[in-house]
Amino acid sequence: MSIEIPFTKMHGLGNCYIYVDLISQSIDIPSYSDLAVQAADEHTGIGSDGLILIVPSNRADMMMRIFNKDGSEGKNCGNGLRCVAKYAYDHGLVDQKSFKIETLSGIVDAEVHLKNGQVDLVTIDMGKPILNRSSIPMVGENDEKVINEPIIYNKQNFDMTAVSMGNPHGLFFVDNIEKAPIHELGSFLADNHPTFPEGLNVGFIEKTADNDIAYRVWERGSGITQACGTGACAAVVASILTDRLPMDQTITVHLAGGDLYIKWSQDSQHVLMTGEAKTICKGIFYL
Amino acid sequence: MSIEIPFTKMHGLGNCYIYVDLISQSIDIPSYSDLAVQAADEHTGIGSDGLILIVPSNRADMMMRIFNKDGSEGKNCGNGLRCVAKYAYDHGLVDQKSFKIETLSGIVDAEVHLKNGQVDLVTIDMGKPILNRSSIPMVGENDEKVINEPIIYNKQNFDMTAVSMGNPHGLFFVDNIEKAPIHELGSFLADNHPTFPEGLNVGFIEKTADNDIAYRVWERGSGITQACGTGACAAVVASILTDRLPMDQTITVHLAGGDLYIKWSQDSQHVLMTGEAKTICKGIFYL
Repeated sequence: MSIEIPFTKMHGLGNCYIYVDLISQSIDIPSYSDLAVQAADEHTGIGSDGLILIVPSNRADMMMRIFNKDGSEGKNCGNGLRCVAKYAYDHGLVDQKSFKIETLSGIVDAEVHLKNGQVDLVTIDMGKPILNRSSIPMVGENDEKVINEPIIYNKQNFDMTAVSMGNPHGLFFVDNIEKAPIHELGSFLADNHPTFPEGLNVGFIEKTADNDIAYRVWERGSGITQACGTGACAAVVASILTDRLPMDQTITVHLAGGDLYIKWSQDSQHVLMTGEAKTICKGIFYL
Repeated sequence: MSIEIPFTKMHGLGNCYIYVDLISQSIDIPSYSDLAVQAADEHTGIGSDGLILIVPSNRADMMMRIFNKDGSEGKNCGNGLRCVAKYAYDHGLVDQKSFKIETLSGIVDAEVHLKNGQVDLVTIDMGKPILNRSSIPMVGENDEKVINEPIIYNKQNFDMTAVSMGNPHGLFFVDNIEKAPIHELGSFLADNHPTFPEGLNVGFIEKTADNDIAYRVWERGSGITQACGTGACAAVVASILTDRLPMDQTITVHLAGGDLYIKWSQDSQHVLMTGEAKTICKGIFYL
């Protein structure tokens, strides 16, 4: 007999996971890794980027555990956190609009925003950006902020600003996002450049209006992706550091997969990320 | 408000569709094509190879309508027919184990085989193979069967036997299926060869034991796929035409995605295909 697993499939900007609620129900799942591999398979499973379990926490209102398509456990995922928050509020796991979610990389504040009684947008507190060179991490002579520092590629200079949001981002400003050298600089810097010992997410920014930017990204280990939540935060921080955008205002970031709304708060120095979370389907998976 | 669509996701040898039952329930679906595109999207939908609607028929016990991932309507699908048959019996749309399914390419006989009260294997009558050259269709001087006819590729001769199961197959026998020139002959013959005006599914067969073959396929328009039901039938017919296998016996065909059991019946001249149909999950899709 197969095990019946109630699930919800959700996505944030096209980044989709199978969500299983282990707070309001207990299910005997022999292996979370195996469930992730089987449920995420697009041909013989439901199909997704992985599995997210919503489990009880002693330190927060709930804990998010995230398993990748290959069964390995991940630490965090901005798009996943927004979906966890929507699920938790829509299903009554919390009764406040602001609450805390534990992850393997720390505790995160979430706030939901309603439309017709259901969660539409979710704000996640992404914490303080890390700006000193050695913590990006990036090789170099001082340990100051890395702003407009020249990167030489193919005998040309490209000015880069570096921001860590827990993962390293190198940001480049361009006049036309459609003509940005994403492939060239992405493949040059992301995974094998000696200056970036942990690799680099390579982002390109076009300022499209007041408080409005377009952003494209080459993610380390992945290549070009549709959406990167930490990258959108880093893009806004880099724009502020280079005097292109103001602090304390909500910036619309247009990603290939949709929009995010980012604010770098003057008071707390934290970056707040707001975006959609969507329920695709719910049902029973036969493991 | 979104439209709530009850669905079941099923697969046959990894070929997966979203099944919507329009016999035991009526749902107001504005566009089947749009539903197929949205439900089949792996990031923002459930994710599948397409959509199959089970609808009432005046000519058979039910009708299968199949919509591809791009929203276009298809005619038939052996893996899909097995899943429709399992769904119909498991959900009481029929009360006999043998019944008829209408498709856009004709009416098909199905028979289900139970295990623990649920459908495990399904037999589909795939009809008579078509063997004369012009009906494959294949260019040439006579209109006889095409058996062991040389195809010249890269100055080498490869003997081909041609079988149509409603779609054209060219079959090559090899000593070791792992070393078969699938890429070479597949890309040479499938889509742009003047001898095959409607293209060709290019199959390779290794006889692995008595009544047992391994089969790999390059499908026209698709390239290498995990499983091709009509191809497995064609492989058995070609093996019988070249005296490698007997008629009237069940042949196990090992495909990359799993096994099918094929019998070419002496009496009826029809080819019977038996294989698994699996339910992955069921639930509500929010269109």
